[in-house]
Amino acid sequence: MSDKFRLPARYGAGEKSVWVEYIQLAADYKPAVNLGQGFPDYHAPKHVTKALADIANGDNPLLMQYTRGFGHPRLVQNLSKVYSPLIGKELDAFNEILVTAGAYEALYSAILGHVDNGDEVIVIEPFFDCYDFMIRCAGGIPKFIPLKPKSNKENMTSAEWVLDEKELASLFTKRTKMLILNTPHNPLGKVFTREELEVIADLCKKHDVLCLSDEVYEWMVYEPYKHVRIATLPGMWERTITVGSAGKTFSVTGWKIGWAYCPSNLMRNLQVVHQNCVYTCPTPTQEAVARSFEVELSRIDSPECYFYSLARELLPKRDYLVKTLKENGFNPTIPDGGYFVVADWTKLGDKIDLSSETDKYKDYRFTKKFAKEAGVLAIPPSAFYSEEHKHLGENFARFCFIKKDENLALTEKLLKEWNSKK
Amino acid sequence: MSDKFRLPARYGAGEKSVWVEYIQLAADYKPAVNLGQGFPDYHAPKHVTKALADIANGDNPLLMQYTRGFGHPRLVQNLSKVYSPLIGKELDAFNEILVTAGAYEALYSAILGHVDNGDEVIVIEPFFDCYDFMIRCAGGIPKFIPLKPKSNKENMTSAEWVLDEKELASLFTKRTKMLILNTPHNPLGKVFTREELEVIADLCKKHDVLCLSDEVYEWMVYEPYKHVRIATLPGMWERTITVGSAGKTFSVTGWKIGWAYCPSNLMRNLQVVHQNCVYTCPTPTQEAVARSFEVELSRIDSPECYFYSLARELLPKRDYLVKTLKENGFNPTIPDGGYFVVADWTKLGDKIDLSSETDKYKDYRFTKKFAKEAGVLAIPPSAFYSEEHKHLGENFARFCFIKKDENLALTEKLLKEWNSKK
Repeated sequence: MSDKFRLPARYGAGEKSVWVEYIQLAADYKPAVNLGQGFPDYHAPKHVTKALADIANGDNPLLMQYTRGFGHPRLVQNLSKVYSPLIGKELDAFNEILVTAGAYEALYSAILGHVDNGDEVIVIEPFFDCYDFMIRCAGGIPKFIPLKPKSNKENMTSAEWVLDEKELASLFTKRTKMLILNTPHNPLGKVFTREELEVIADLCKKHDVLCLSDEVYEWMVYEPYKHVRIATLPGMWERTITVGSAGKTFSVTGWKIGWAYCPSNLMRNLQVVHQNCVYTCPTPTQEAVARSFEVELSRIDSPECYFYSLARELLPKRDYLVKTLKENGFNPTIPDGGYFVVADWTKLGDKIDLSSETDKYKDYRFTKKFAKEAGVLAIPPSAFYSEEHKHLGENFARFCFIKKDENLALTEKLLKEWNSKK
Repeated sequence: MSDKFRLPARYGAGEKSVWVEYIQLAADYKPAVNLGQGFPDYHAPKHVTKALADIANGDNPLLMQYTRGFGHPRLVQNLSKVYSPLIGKELDAFNEILVTAGAYEALYSAILGHVDNGDEVIVIEPFFDCYDFMIRCAGGIPKFIPLKPKSNKENMTSAEWVLDEKELASLFTKRTKMLILNTPHNPLGKVFTREELEVIADLCKKHDVLCLSDEVYEWMVYEPYKHVRIATLPGMWERTITVGSAGKTFSVTGWKIGWAYCPSNLMRNLQVVHQNCVYTCPTPTQEAVARSFEVELSRIDSPECYFYSLARELLPKRDYLVKTLKENGFNPTIPDGGYFVVADWTKLGDKIDLSSETDKYKDYRFTKKFAKEAGVLAIPPSAFYSEEHKHLGENFARFCFIKKDENLALTEKLLKEWNSKK
């Protein structure tokens, strides 16, 4: 075959994926504990999985067939009920909400639907790696700004990773179309404060820029932090597209149901991308998510509501993993949200010989070698930085703690064993 | 808000969707029978829905979490078992098969992954409307060629709709990257014969052109017709991307699981699009489709296998709908495959006053007015033609017959009542 069938140039940046590589690595090396990809290794809430089983076993054959392309009616109606009180505005279920193939496709539809050739998009580093690709694929130009730790001391929390306000302001130009925010933040766990969000909001308003707010970890926030939705800041509703995830909300990442909400004039662009790329999302899982929301809405004022119980369930897991990492030579940043810990591994540098690993970046070499030696798989954060800033991620590894207690205990055992051999 | 947030120009062609419009129409007017969108209104095979229920109720929590991005291992392995004997070649489950968010996303990944700016793509009319949009969205230029009926006589079959071979040959240029084939064909039901496919294959080989073969109706073929996979013709495997659908295969259109298979060098392009737009497909439904294939593979030589029983089940429905349409003033083309009937409605023209309808094309005006008067909803086929050829579809309406017998009987009753009033 000829070179005629090469990949179109617009996909040049998207060839390599840390996920494809590290999921393959997990399959090949079978590490004893996989703290790489972010998903729970234990059971989702019973009412959620039971809803899906009931639907599959149920009497309504239409729940196995196509539903409304922009979102199953029962689901968008429930999303409106969940979010309207949270954003202080009645959300129009049919015109201001879009259900997508995971939050991933919501990001895709928002970016492809709004970013045109030559538009600039401000991206905060480290970032979920797909942002960069999607922007380039739309013909846009990403402009990166890193969150930086105020210090490198012990017991640092994610709140100490901050943006330089002057640097941020300097990135806004006439070509800036969008800023992508992610709070609670993956991988750092940073929960942006109202004050931090106001700085971002003021710049977006001043320069007439959209804010794409990826809030998939919205329910995983640890006291005393509170999740603030940037869409609720004055003047921001009309320029914010907020993205959420059933996978994160209900611990069913494999269902791949996500959503975006925003004003209908901004939503139209997302709908056009969506209707031409996947057209509609699965009916049975949408119906099951709708029913799951109904259960939570019925106990929204109770601590038993999964929106709150999940964070309580995760907190001891976070603390255990942080302690384990600290006791074994890592310097973790304590996350205020999300289910990842980013830990500096450089103090272990003289205990591990990375010369057999051939990757360009140190964190890839460390995580691969560490998985082989210790049996614990983590993700290299340089994957979440732009080419020019990858060195900022090289000293770190990302660990996921939404794992059953026995696997976190096994992590501790493996880390101790590895350290004792060194 | 400013004009700054208008839709990027690449989506110019995708704003309007006949599906969005007609599904809304069905919701607004609630016609007694909806023969519009193509999905069954009765139960899918019990073993298929039971598989999903078993998985949701089951002991393995990982089946609710992310799976391999390019396809759940158990599903791609079963797809290889199903298709390898059919294409006479051992399909590499992990490199030659991609699982997608419905066949729709398989088409998207194939077109966006291969069509570059200025590439020409040959599209046979009438066509599934998303082809056109996806090509334009990739920067490609669609070149259209209509299937035309040899006559307008009564009792015509879909085999009598043919391509002009000279016209087809004239469309191939140095810029031609791809030809899109759809067999069995939506909406006509045409099952391309080996001889017809050879003409297409020879031109693709002569001009070094890819064939994207949409075969989602592969199991709905009526005697004496046989589905021929163009990938099996000499020299075609290496230039063919074949698309299939669990929704069509197992009568669960709402599951939105599809796939593409092709040589790994062509597949790479699809994977890159897929991994950056949805990244991975739902795990529970992929596992359920995998188990469903296992059931069918275990009885592949039995007439009970759903691959064969479905067409037997559909045949009397086809014949009943064709007879009903004929007896009530339509001139239907008898389909040799698929689950649609395209029928000429012009003999009813003097019985129906379309002046209250404002659509540009007659078939839109007819189907809307007919839905309101007779209570039977059909789809206007001009939606499946290019701008310059829309007149070729204006005399027709598309009816779906994968509906329960009582709804087909109700259709007959409603058509008779409508005729008797005129």
